[in-house]
Amino acid sequence: MAIRIGILGYGNLGKGVECALKHNPDMELAAVFTRREPQSLHILTKGVPVYHVDKASSMKDAIDVMILCGGSATDLPVQTPEFVRLFNVVDSFDTHAKIPEHFDSVDKAAKESGHVGLISAGWDPGMFSLNRLYANAVLPGGHDYTFWGKGVSQGHSDAIRRIKGVKDARQYTIPVEKALEAVRSGSNPQLSTRQKHTRECFVVAEEDADLAEIEKEIVNMPNYFADYDTTVHFISEEELQRDHRGIPHGGFVIRTGKTGWNDENSHVVEYSLKLDSNPEFTASVIAAYARAVYRLNQEGHSGCRTVFDIAPAYLSALDGSQLRKHLL
Amino acid sequence: MAIRIGILGYGNLGKGVECALKHNPDMELAAVFTRREPQSLHILTKGVPVYHVDKASSMKDAIDVMILCGGSATDLPVQTPEFVRLFNVVDSFDTHAKIPEHFDSVDKAAKESGHVGLISAGWDPGMFSLNRLYANAVLPGGHDYTFWGKGVSQGHSDAIRRIKGVKDARQYTIPVEKALEAVRSGSNPQLSTRQKHTRECFVVAEEDADLAEIEKEIVNMPNYFADYDTTVHFISEEELQRDHRGIPHGGFVIRTGKTGWNDENSHVVEYSLKLDSNPEFTASVIAAYARAVYRLNQEGHSGCRTVFDIAPAYLSALDGSQLRKHLL
Repeated sequence: MAIRIGILGYGNLGKGVECALKHNPDMELAAVFTRREPQSLHILTKGVPVYHVDKASSMKDAIDVMILCGGSATDLPVQTPEFVRLFNVVDSFDTHAKIPEHFDSVDKAAKESGHVGLISAGWDPGMFSLNRLYANAVLPGGHDYTFWGKGVSQGHSDAIRRIKGVKDARQYTIPVEKALEAVRSGSNPQLSTRQKHTRECFVVAEEDADLAEIEKEIVNMPNYFADYDTTVHFISEEELQRDHRGIPHGGFVIRTGKTGWNDENSHVVEYSLKLDSNPEFTASVIAAYARAVYRLNQEGHSGCRTVFDIAPAYLSALDGSQLRKHLL
Repeated sequence: MAIRIGILGYGNLGKGVECALKHNPDMELAAVFTRREPQSLHILTKGVPVYHVDKASSMKDAIDVMILCGGSATDLPVQTPEFVRLFNVVDSFDTHAKIPEHFDSVDKAAKESGHVGLISAGWDPGMFSLNRLYANAVLPGGHDYTFWGKGVSQGHSDAIRRIKGVKDARQYTIPVEKALEAVRSGSNPQLSTRQKHTRECFVVAEEDADLAEIEKEIVNMPNYFADYDTTVHFISEEELQRDHRGIPHGGFVIRTGKTGWNDENSHVVEYSLKLDSNPEFTASVIAAYARAVYRLNQEGHSGCRTVFDIAPAYLSALDGSQLRKHLL
């Protein structure tokens, strides 16, 4: 019997999870839950019901894992501990600084209810975290570097859109190739914020807007742009729609370290992602962890987990002997 | 109290493990065991005894994890099941085709004795296997590619040394850059053996040897060279010692796959290693898994494990809350 999945929240991520389930025949979409009017939602999977989120608690026995597709700022800190009382859950909580407190609140609720709640699945946190951990364990005393991009930053795009005279905008974060090369050389460079990434902005301005003023506001915006070399391009709405509709992202996790009795040998471990669709890849990671969460709970486990706590074999639809034969 | 480690076999790998322990203060070298005359061995760590392997069974209570540093062809198939009856063990068994039977024989002995035996630690099998598994789980229906090098192949170097008139040799396996680029493009190329890697040989010939004949024998050698584009350089013994003393290696694991309702988005996941010392990096992976094996056994587990069965957190000296705070 397939693992029955619920999706809570049907934005880019929720739709990405729906698509990921199509690629994983051992899982099936049981229902989508929304805070909107259910009739207003048109999902891709034929024959699957859409319910108002208030109905979720009555579906306890029809869903093996509920995937929470809300945002990290206000949705997940409330939803994950709430829903793990009813379901096994997976979320993609990505406010790095608040992970410890989120973990604690989910862990308490999960243990009380006997469910497994896996938090912070995705690629950063997620696959990038795994690669940081593995490389740290293998090369103690080394140096870690994480670069993001080339990719669209939703937060930075939103910040530009809030400027007076801006109609729409898309911001790309771009790793500096020279910095990447310096890291790969094993020279352990100390890199400033400005040296690691540049920011490129494509802006659609209102008619008669003061372009020079918009550009000045962008490049001097504290936290978002002031510490970076930022370039601003003004383009038409048509160009934005034509050339910048996608949500690509990616990045690099690199660790360099030494081995040998006198640290005489250098090593470079590099992991990189090049993603056409940030939400769909995140959703694909989530789907694999939903499988793991289901299995762990079937084995009697409960509590909060992160990607660090899950043995890799739990993620795969193949069994142990197949994995050893084909992938080891 | 530090985890007490024994090393069985003091070649390049055993010495690499000794160096790795120096980098991991929560572990300590308790003893080295050898089939040679113990007095003939001079290890790097002050004050640590060297014993004949026959003495190992009397050291059951003095060693938490025994690391088996023998070869996969004849040593480990016998040693790993034998020593897991006495100790928790880690080996680096790397004959991919024989892993299933090795697993079964180690699992049986480990379960009977109540120990944990982790097999096939290193980078391939090992870190490469992990990356194949993670990427497969996240991108089902994608394509896998593994490239090796640039690095020294001991087996191919040995094969050249067996040719009449050859005094010494070093063989490098080199991935073809054009093939790597084709894979990264997401075009899912079908690549022949010849298209993926080239082989470069540095050969020291005996005086008066027939160089043309040696070259012909190398490039036409079945299995080892005939299916590759191979170049042969004759150099002096001094040049070999000066320029080819190291044992570098590395490689690339790449998976490409699609997401989206109609497979409309492409993704590239790439993991690469650039290693100055193949045995020292392998040993560093082994050391991290020795920590995991010790902890699992302390928790009451027994049986054979591979890297697929170990939750990443077990590899790190940091505890769960530190990991979540600093690496997630």
